[in-house]
Amino acid sequence: MNGALMAREIGDQPQVFARILREGLFCIDGVCRAIARRQPRFVLFAARGTSDHAALYGKYLVETQLKIPAGLVSPSTMTIYDTHPTLHDVLFIAISQSGASPDLIEPVIRARAGGAITLAITNTPDSLLAVGAEYQLNILAGKECAVAATKTYTAELLVIFLLIQALSGQPREDIDWLPEQAEAVLAGEAKVAQLALRYRFAEQIIVTARGYNYPTARETALKLMETSYLVAHGISAADLLHGPVAMIGRGFPVIAIVPEGAGGRAMDPLLDRLRDLGADTMIVGDPTVCQRGIVALALGGIPEILSPLLLVLPMQQFAWHLARARGNDPDQPAGIEKVTETW
Amino acid sequence: MNGALMAREIGDQPQVFARILREGLFCIDGVCRAIARRQPRFVLFAARGTSDHAALYGKYLVETQLKIPAGLVSPSTMTIYDTHPTLHDVLFIAISQSGASPDLIEPVIRARAGGAITLAITNTPDSLLAVGAEYQLNILAGKECAVAATKTYTAELLVIFLLIQALSGQPREDIDWLPEQAEAVLAGEAKVAQLALRYRFAEQIIVTARGYNYPTARETALKLMETSYLVAHGISAADLLHGPVAMIGRGFPVIAIVPEGAGGRAMDPLLDRLRDLGADTMIVGDPTVCQRGIVALALGGIPEILSPLLLVLPMQQFAWHLARARGNDPDQPAGIEKVTETW
Repeated sequence: MNGALMAREIGDQPQVFARILREGLFCIDGVCRAIARRQPRFVLFAARGTSDHAALYGKYLVETQLKIPAGLVSPSTMTIYDTHPTLHDVLFIAISQSGASPDLIEPVIRARAGGAITLAITNTPDSLLAVGAEYQLNILAGKECAVAATKTYTAELLVIFLLIQALSGQPREDIDWLPEQAEAVLAGEAKVAQLALRYRFAEQIIVTARGYNYPTARETALKLMETSYLVAHGISAADLLHGPVAMIGRGFPVIAIVPEGAGGRAMDPLLDRLRDLGADTMIVGDPTVCQRGIVALALGGIPEILSPLLLVLPMQQFAWHLARARGNDPDQPAGIEKVTETW
Repeated sequence: MNGALMAREIGDQPQVFARILREGLFCIDGVCRAIARRQPRFVLFAARGTSDHAALYGKYLVETQLKIPAGLVSPSTMTIYDTHPTLHDVLFIAISQSGASPDLIEPVIRARAGGAITLAITNTPDSLLAVGAEYQLNILAGKECAVAATKTYTAELLVIFLLIQALSGQPREDIDWLPEQAEAVLAGEAKVAQLALRYRFAEQIIVTARGYNYPTARETALKLMETSYLVAHGISAADLLHGPVAMIGRGFPVIAIVPEGAGGRAMDPLLDRLRDLGADTMIVGDPTVCQRGIVALALGGIPEILSPLLLVLPMQQFAWHLARARGNDPDQPAGIEKVTETW
């Protein structure tokens, strides 16, 4: 079957969550203790593609949970412009499922030489990236065969969540419910498949959110571009109102990720504007907001801070079904490879 | 004439450059000395829309010229999730032409309370943002009337360049040639107008670059969305190769910003891929690379680090001409205001 690999890996995610919670905590706590002793004052993330969206989630968590500054590194400043930065007191976290991208390995080596505490988060413990960093965490997702990353994305999100929570010194929340809830979300696939059909002839789409789910919007757009060849633009709801909203006319397709919580409530002004413009809005999330969309996928009862791990699941299914509806094989995206070697 | 305001403001840019170099340096040097005494170790930028692209240029400059870590703040972590961060040793730079966006003012107040050195870069010295920050710099662009920002963008770029250069302790480069070269670039408008016609019926476009001109790609895409209602995606050439390239087929329109220098040379693998895919690529920049595009706009003899101030000029003209070719008034984008109030 076209897309069998990606379908299986989407379905694996509850088990991967369970595995991380069962086997990963010990390492996360150990790495956390070693890092905390060195009292980092600034956190930098380096990543590309899907992992860059996991890094963006990490950046929000550092800002809100650790309350210290965070940034996303532009790898090109080291690889193209040959900069050797000074990074004392910086925790430098590189995220990559393969651990093989040259434009992450070189920055980690330079960050380490520049005095940073370096941590690699990968699915490949013997990769150059993992070996080159001082500390490493394995996301325990098992081999990912489909080109479009799914289970490694959510595994990265969970490992980052657990790490930042441990670094914050707060007692660990009970999230043993996560695998089961992921299973329940994935079980809604029939509704998602039906929704996807509606977009068979869409030529472009905007995916938008704010706060913790801005990475969900970006990742959804990337999955749609990779598997359905749909021109998809993942954009923050605030940035959308600062200009690009001008291109939205009657019937323009928009997916709005609206979790329960403050980040979802902050979508209100945009949802009003989209209604006034006559956009064709799909709402994913808060059941009480769903009637504001033309179509909707209700997903409630999820704490906002963890909602990126769950709200992306139906979006992966959506990309898969849409790819097949458009006659593509989700497992064989045109013109891209599993490991992208950029310098 | 439709678009008279934006056309005038595009044309004003050489004079604005000259004004900053004549009247702005004294303030920039003063602010630099005050900041340098306090030895910031990290730099954070906060901005939205066009100014966010100026912030991105600033982030590249901090990384390459100051060699210390930098980040772009997610304002929502303070305004939506109500975080009070700890920011000792942090230089916090907010950039906004109006200085009136609530989701920048609150972060500046919190950053100051959290121990940061705060600097506002605005075109409105009596704005709440400028007054709320400890230091401020006026970009001296004169009142901007068109909704789509042009001269305030390049003025922000120049002020940021001069500030970071001063902070780097390097002797000031002679850039008195800048206004005249800007004038020469703008004088190529007839060619740009002709090129723009070609995109009359384009439904979507990708604008791409790497390094210092990644902000140029993002800003070009934003101008096209605001004025021509074209679905434009500004994306880094490295990220493009990590997935979204899958959606590019024969004849897909792409604008590649390719300056002379390392950032332009780093575009080589992407240009090869675009050729293999049969994309309809317009090349803007390095005259020796131009023959690799289907169409091109040659602009040479510009030091790469300053090229974002000049390569964006024909792109503003391009957006203006395309908007008019599509029957829109570039001065009156649908559904957006000059000052966007997001929280």
